[in-house]
Amino acid sequence: MKEQNLDEIIAKVVKEAGIAVARTPRKLTLSLANALIEKVQEKAKSMNMRVVTAVVDAGGNPIAVQCMDDAYIASYDIALNKAFTSVSLKMSTKTLASLAGPGGSLYGIQHTNNGRIVIFGGGVPLRDKGEIIGGFGVSGGSAKEDTELGDYAESIFKTLL
Amino acid sequence: MKEQNLDEIIAKVVKEAGIAVARTPRKLTLSLANALIEKVQEKAKSMNMRVVTAVVDAGGNPIAVQCMDDAYIASYDIALNKAFTSVSLKMSTKTLASLAGPGGSLYGIQHTNNGRIVIFGGGVPLRDKGEIIGGFGVSGGSAKEDTELGDYAESIFKTLL
Amino acid sequence: MKEQNLDEIIAKVVKEAGIAVARTPRKLTLSLANALIEKVQEKAKSMNMRVVTAVVDAGGNPIAVQCMDDAYIASYDIALNKAFTSVSLKMSTKTLASLAGPGGSLYGIQHTNNGRIVIFGGGVPLRDKGEIIGGFGVSGGSAKEDTELGDYAESIFKTLL
Amino acid sequence: MKEQNLDEIIAKVVKEAGIAVARTPRKLTLSLANALIEKVQEKAKSMNMRVVTAVVDAGGNPIAVQCMDDAYIASYDIALNKAFTSVSLKMSTKTLASLAGPGGSLYGIQHTNNGRIVIFGGGVPLRDKGEIIGGFGVSGGSAKEDTELGDYAESIFKTLL
Repeated sequence: MKEQNLDEIIAKVVKEAGIAVARTPRKLTLSLANALIEKVQEKAKSMNMRVVTAVVDAGGNPIAVQCMDDAYIASYDIALNKAFTSVSLKMSTKTLASLAGPGGSLYGIQHTNNGRIVIFGGGVPLRDKGEIIGGFGVSGGSAKEDTELGDYAESIFKTLL
Repeated sequence: MKEQNLDEIIAKVVKEAGIAVARTPRKLTLSLANALIEKVQEKAKSMNMRVVTAVVDAGGNPIAVQCMDDAYIASYDIALNKAFTSVSLKMSTKTLASLAGPGGSLYGIQHTNNGRIVIFGGGVPLRDKGEIIGGFGVSGGSAKEDTELGDYAESIFKTLL
Repeated sequence: MKEQNLDEIIAKVVKEAGIAVARTPRKLTLSLANALIEKVQEKAKSMNMRVVTAVVDAGGNPIAVQCMDDAYIASYDIALNKAFTSVSLKMSTKTLASLAGPGGSLYGIQHTNNGRIVIFGGGVPLRDKGEIIGGFGVSGGSAKEDTELGDYAESIFKTLL
Repeated sequence: MKEQNLDEIIAKVVKEAGIAVARTPRKLTLSLANALIEKVQEKAKSMNMRVVTAVVDAGGNPIAVQCMDDAYIASYDIALNKAFTSVSLKMSTKTLASLAGPGGSLYGIQHTNNGRIVIFGGGVPLRDKGEIIGGFGVSGGSAKEDTELGDYAESIFKTLL
């Protein structure tokens, strides 16, 4: 057997195995969570906002929460619950907001989970390779501002993977 | 008194007692609950849904809860609370939804029971011989889909008795 | 290159890749959870017990809860919280019990997590390939009986994988 | 009044005001909280531990919580509650532990604040110029290890001011 052939075969198999490994979504680590939070805090500063940011894992359990100086006390629960909502319902809270108003198909859903479901923007699912690996929530501005920061988090997260 | 009369009297009493016994509704057992859940899970699969299903007894206490793989985390509380709502208010959550919106006669009811009242479809009372013997709740799809599965559960339950 | 050599190489690589795959712990599915619950219910029957059994995933979220007919109403929360405790503290509630009594190093831990930490036997972590992939909790008998059933669940679980 | 007299009076007032300002304790900022957490995480790594660390402000409200990869799920609430306990009772949870056991002067205190009082080591008040400006909590190891990390946090905090 030629060395070259062997190398080629191994390379091919490794490559295929590599693809398989690459398809497994990453675990959402603390360093990844903190990197995301840092990016969002920078963006919030540029918008002259003081926000609370939260990251939860795929099971809805918290990984990191950070409160910028002088943020609302209430924002802590809101940010964390937005992150939880996005994971536990597999959608952004912006999308949920459109379903949960009077007349909407999910009107009243905010009362179903011990106060942990938030129905206004700022919560987004975090995905890797198409799977939800966690959730992000931000609170501190208007619904419009929080929604904008949430969308920013969802898109910037892809660059951090 | 003639023997015949005695027999007639006894027969009459037994007959009436028999009718009375026949009218006693069944207790909602775990095996009945699981049989119902299995039927609904099959139906959910055929609708390409992943749902959480819950059955509670006449006291509103859980008998069985099952979460299909990859169902929403939030659906656990929602399904269980739908089942509880149906028993505790003696109506389907679909009916309640029509009464609990702004302007409705039960507007605000979702705030009365520590977050256990759900006001969108998917919860139904389970009846035997006209009496409510438990409740069923399902969560995992749109309000329309959950309502459809709830209605299915209510009707299929009769065939399991 | 000989075909035989190629086959051997591929077999070796596949085998090694296979080992790598085999090392990834299984996800705790609903069917696995129900299979475990069925086993424990059989054992409970043989001990003349009526228990509530609960299985949660690696994030502490419920997969299945089943209440045998005539079990304690209170056992529902206890079983589910035992399962949660085992996952969230990575130990059996039997082990925790020995640390949480007066004078123990974790005395008072049952007050730390919104009433979800249980400090008597019957909760066990469920492992695959050395990793905790979920938790099991049982409630319905004496602490001794629940502990016995929990230990049974932990060991029988390995045969179901 | 002579000009000189006026200057002297102003200088005297400024000086006194200056001393007063200098005595004002620092506010516990997010960057200070994160710096403290980083130090404790380094120490935890060196002890081969995976911990959750939490910092709260003088009002007992969270500033930052971080969960090292693979830390206990339950440690999130415990760490945060330890930090809250230290601020809300103005003592370390180690000190509280010695008062809260059976026979102790604060026996039962863990039931008074909706489960937010923790009575084992790992929570410490954070001080500047003699005043409590926040609290720190850590959870993830044995009570002994958590206590050691808490003590470390309390002392290292002074070097960060």
